[in-house]
Amino acid sequence: MEKIAVIGAGLVGSLGAIYLAKRGFDVSIYERRPDMRKTTLSAGRSINLALSDRGWKALDGVGVSEEIREIAIPMYGRMMHGLDGQLTFQAYGKENQAIYSVSRGELNAKLMSCAEENGVKIEFNKRCLDIDLETNRMEFQDEILGETLLVSADRVLATDGAFSAVRSKYQLQDRFNYSQYYIKHGYKELVIPANLDGTHKLDKHALHIWPRGEFMLIALANLDGSFTCTLFFPFEGENSFESLKTEQQVLKFFNEVFPDAVPLMPTLVEDYFSNPTSSLITVKCEPWNYKDKSLLLGDAAHAIVPFFGQGMNSGFEDCTVLNEIMNQESDWDVIFNRFSSERKKDGDAIADLALQNFIEMRDLVGNKDYLLRKKIEKKIYEKYPNL
Amino acid sequence: MEKIAVIGAGLVGSLGAIYLAKRGFDVSIYERRPDMRKTTLSAGRSINLALSDRGWKALDGVGVSEEIREIAIPMYGRMMHGLDGQLTFQAYGKENQAIYSVSRGELNAKLMSCAEENGVKIEFNKRCLDIDLETNRMEFQDEILGETLLVSADRVLATDGAFSAVRSKYQLQDRFNYSQYYIKHGYKELVIPANLDGTHKLDKHALHIWPRGEFMLIALANLDGSFTCTLFFPFEGENSFESLKTEQQVLKFFNEVFPDAVPLMPTLVEDYFSNPTSSLITVKCEPWNYKDKSLLLGDAAHAIVPFFGQGMNSGFEDCTVLNEIMNQESDWDVIFNRFSSERKKDGDAIADLALQNFIEMRDLVGNKDYLLRKKIEKKIYEKYPNL
Repeated sequence: MEKIAVIGAGLVGSLGAIYLAKRGFDVSIYERRPDMRKTTLSAGRSINLALSDRGWKALDGVGVSEEIREIAIPMYGRMMHGLDGQLTFQAYGKENQAIYSVSRGELNAKLMSCAEENGVKIEFNKRCLDIDLETNRMEFQDEILGETLLVSADRVLATDGAFSAVRSKYQLQDRFNYSQYYIKHGYKELVIPANLDGTHKLDKHALHIWPRGEFMLIALANLDGSFTCTLFFPFEGENSFESLKTEQQVLKFFNEVFPDAVPLMPTLVEDYFSNPTSSLITVKCEPWNYKDKSLLLGDAAHAIVPFFGQGMNSGFEDCTVLNEIMNQESDWDVIFNRFSSERKKDGDAIADLALQNFIEMRDLVGNKDYLLRKKIEKKIYEKYPNL
Repeated sequence: MEKIAVIGAGLVGSLGAIYLAKRGFDVSIYERRPDMRKTTLSAGRSINLALSDRGWKALDGVGVSEEIREIAIPMYGRMMHGLDGQLTFQAYGKENQAIYSVSRGELNAKLMSCAEENGVKIEFNKRCLDIDLETNRMEFQDEILGETLLVSADRVLATDGAFSAVRSKYQLQDRFNYSQYYIKHGYKELVIPANLDGTHKLDKHALHIWPRGEFMLIALANLDGSFTCTLFFPFEGENSFESLKTEQQVLKFFNEVFPDAVPLMPTLVEDYFSNPTSSLITVKCEPWNYKDKSLLLGDAAHAIVPFFGQGMNSGFEDCTVLNEIMNQESDWDVIFNRFSSERKKDGDAIADLALQNFIEMRDLVGNKDYLLRKKIEKKIYEKYPNL
């Protein structure tokens, strides 16, 4: 039986492993971090995720979507919060069309358990130090014991994220195209806690946005009644992470620009200073495979900024597409080459849309002309849905 | 006295070291290869260089241009070789304006010797393994003895080329933008030897081009009567390095597309199969400095394709610009930050022009409409030189 090593037990690694295990392969995942199901989730760095059709389709493909729907909250549109506190709702589609707010941690935990139920072995605390691309011999460091572990596999799926260790080896090859690009904004997680009775302080069925031109705040509902908020903010400049240095500055600024949000955030100042400020990277590269040996999937191949809500969804779609190609082909060389060449242009397109959508979200959605245009577009679409 | 380590004794490293030594710093260069002045030059991988005004200005700045002029051959224009053997000359400018053909090896050797005359110490066979960006502690491997050498310096100038070891450490930093992009063409060096009496087989005062649409051959004169030729050719496809596999195929193809060149190249087949096929990379990154500690210069900061003839020239111009900034500033933090932010946009612009000029050289210069347009442009320029 062919042995497949998956590097990284994140969302795409766990789902990809399920697909491969269901095809009968001997699949092991090597994950750098400890088992998140046994430790407290580290907060402060996870943008909430919005599952959309592409994502659900990939989950359907291995029969886990029912289970995931239980932890997902439908969001039927965007709720814009004006400077004056005025709310404007903009539906995502007709009637019950929605994207779904899910916690990255809960979703990942469920996918890991599902992978194990399908016979996948997950080795935690194993940091990938090196891979020989020609032989697929890999060196891992056990982060607990400090020992070095040598592993071989017939195929390797690199789902080790935006800072992929496997991809860093790809980059040393002649004729490997690669780019990493950081936008001038970073992000910081904040929180709107639940009411005492466990209910949400805002409409949980909307993606809340405070668009303010050069920056924005968003909030997505959690099952426990809280909202995970994310501030997207320039690193440097007049209004920036660099410029807000004291508690007074933070409170003054938030009261000025997010006046209706401040009363909902009792731990604002504490969270602002204790949560990390993280950067936002776009990664493009080519090719995504090394011969018939290994393949980059998800963020390892195409990390994008979160503003189009398609990072996880397109990573999940990678699993769908790979599975469809494997339904048609049996030669790994063909499978990996087809995947890389067919999927690459989609990856690039989504990366560019995500960068573009940041401007729309933080700026245009707060603009009256834009709202009117969207309204007209929708009317036209309703009248001529097939055009 | 401040200690400066220059990584790489290539063209830019050697020239930059002269500038710094003349300012009174204690400068050492660490070079991976052996001393090229004591070993036979390895042929087969060096595109001849075309020195232009920017380059001469930088050489003037340290008083070495007289010496270099002795080994440079002026080229007053492009000589296009048609499929039918017809020659078309297109002057680069008015009257005596020229760019100068120089051998990379000879130029580099002269700059190294000049650096040593100015008190620079060059340590050969020292491969840079690691650098701590915060402390400028570096680890080198002696390529002869196998020993590891630890070195510290107050400032580091990384002139270690397109595959810079120092830059690979920069890339691990948060918010470092980086891209490496390979074009679909590679190149191979070929040769037109001198006549028996040591004279050139073609006009030595022209840059010879055989433009053929998807590919091209160029030739630049050497002092010994030979021409260094470079074939720029797709790696894959109908007419490509991949498609020409046998001696017969190579000869047939060259006779078809470069009929007037074949009789001048008696070792064509031998050279084609023994010389390596090399790739062509464009590197962009930002920022070019790490605080006041180190600075990327030349190809390490902005490697470009050779079609604009500006790779070396803009690397040399880096030295001019850095020197000018150092005339105005004394704080290293300011010097490095100013250099990085002021020079970066020029680097990007030249990189894009170089990619664009490939299309012009291999395609347009063989096109009649293009030649007419250039002629008209020239006439207009002569009439209205100030516009």
